[in-house]
Amino acid sequence: MNSFHLPGSSKGTCSTFLVDGQTVGSIPAAVVKELHGYPEVFTVYQDSTRGPASCVELNTKLSSYDLRSAAVHQVLEDLRSRNLFQTLREWRDERYEVMPQFSDRTLMNMERAATPLFGVKQYGVHVNGYFWRGSEPFMWIARRSLTKPTYPGLLDNLAAGGISTGMGIKETLIKECQEEACIPEAIAARAKPVGSVSYTYESVKGIYPECQFVYDLELPQDFVPRVGDGEVQQFYLWPMEKVKETIATTDFKPNCALVVLDFLVRHGFIDPDQEPYYLEFVEGLHQAL
Amino acid sequence: MNSFHLPGSSKGTCSTFLVDGQTVGSIPAAVVKELHGYPEVFTVYQDSTRGPASCVELNTKLSSYDLRSAAVHQVLEDLRSRNLFQTLREWRDERYEVMPQFSDRTLMNMERAATPLFGVKQYGVHVNGYFWRGSEPFMWIARRSLTKPTYPGLLDNLAAGGISTGMGIKETLIKECQEEACIPEAIAARAKPVGSVSYTYESVKGIYPECQFVYDLELPQDFVPRVGDGEVQQFYLWPMEKVKETIATTDFKPNCALVVLDFLVRHGFIDPDQEPYYLEFVEGLHQAL
Repeated sequence: MNSFHLPGSSKGTCSTFLVDGQTVGSIPAAVVKELHGYPEVFTVYQDSTRGPASCVELNTKLSSYDLRSAAVHQVLEDLRSRNLFQTLREWRDERYEVMPQFSDRTLMNMERAATPLFGVKQYGVHVNGYFWRGSEPFMWIARRSLTKPTYPGLLDNLAAGGISTGMGIKETLIKECQEEACIPEAIAARAKPVGSVSYTYESVKGIYPECQFVYDLELPQDFVPRVGDGEVQQFYLWPMEKVKETIATTDFKPNCALVVLDFLVRHGFIDPDQEPYYLEFVEGLHQAL
Repeated sequence: MNSFHLPGSSKGTCSTFLVDGQTVGSIPAAVVKELHGYPEVFTVYQDSTRGPASCVELNTKLSSYDLRSAAVHQVLEDLRSRNLFQTLREWRDERYEVMPQFSDRTLMNMERAATPLFGVKQYGVHVNGYFWRGSEPFMWIARRSLTKPTYPGLLDNLAAGGISTGMGIKETLIKECQEEACIPEAIAARAKPVGSVSYTYESVKGIYPECQFVYDLELPQDFVPRVGDGEVQQFYLWPMEKVKETIATTDFKPNCALVVLDFLVRHGFIDPDQEPYYLEFVEGLHQAL
């Protein structure tokens, strides 16, 4: 899940993306090449002494959230119409906030499908649904619909979703629990925030620095989630041991496996005296973006 | 707690410490200067193109755990007798394992007091002692004895200790619970592993990359820890809200405050919708060493 930081990634050839003096992303060289064509929006600094990894700055004359968002959106619509980038074919009409690291100051927003072109962080929320039957722990696992554009048919957490502009974290959680698993708000609202997992991966579509807020939702023993908006095809109720075995396979969507691994660590299902990769697990789950 | 990674640290002038081809630490320049005097044990590579941050390799002829440990110990005893380094005045007669990152293969051991001179990772275990009274959470907090060589009089977790050569993690936990807080083994053994916190700080004594395995111990409501070997002067039973307020002060030993912060995050006492530094907290608690 941290392929962007491994040898062979495009990391060394990406340009830093600066907005209002703050680093907010990493732009692959193929994208920088196109941004040269929009000099009124993007300033591309080519520093030959630093190699190809230079810097792209959003025009500092775009001095407000609204001005920045609108100017970039116009460029993205143009790039989309020119059909240059695969990810823009998955246009969502959904905006994500663009923020510097460790800040709640949002600088602009950006169409969700375009964020991998700028290596802009995406934030989401994932929910572990579980309960104890006596001393035996069980977890609800979802299987993604075969019609999902990403990771069709793979295993997922009980509910999860990206955090869109204007939405809170818990608010997103309650919405996704309702839409994906028909969990009433009165139950979803009991979910407890328990941390986050973060990682950066790269695909042919771009760079994905992602941070998932993690919530644990202890469900009533007799509660059964139901398929809602069709993003999930089925829910399974598995003993924790089966969940533990399965996250090591390719049947799980990778970031959902990380969320389950974090659950197993936090709830004492992994013994550091027995597991030689214990610290690698914990540190790997929390990569600074 | 991550001062080694901040501007102004000695990071840029430290030498990599290699044992059997593996990086196991960072050696400050003042220490490297002395190691030149032991060419049969340490090979100092000065690479002028790389600046002062070169590399110190343990003589590869020292081909076994025992040979390496003995040769380095002899050097350390000599440095101690020459009274060159403050940390060696706190000689412990206790050995720590020297391991590459993410490996359970130990390469040698080293006197505990000397590890900061080589920036060798130290491993420890910390125990959060807590219980619920109805819906109200309480936590046991220790105040360190005024005679402790480090952080005298500051607040600490219920029990904690470094992991010495030959000791397991849970084994160390049970020993420290008994010695420091008179907790019987039958109770201490219920502690659950829940993750780790890691950080690297620097002081005048050297470089401290530390990793603490964290355990939660839910105590019986009527259990009261007692002062044991004199490392603790007093135990306090505090409502969680008071603990939360106090970790932001300088009254806590810094790494113990991190362990409590991790507890607060994992148990849902911090709301990411309200706390702008939530992700900084979580990522800061899990710095790769």
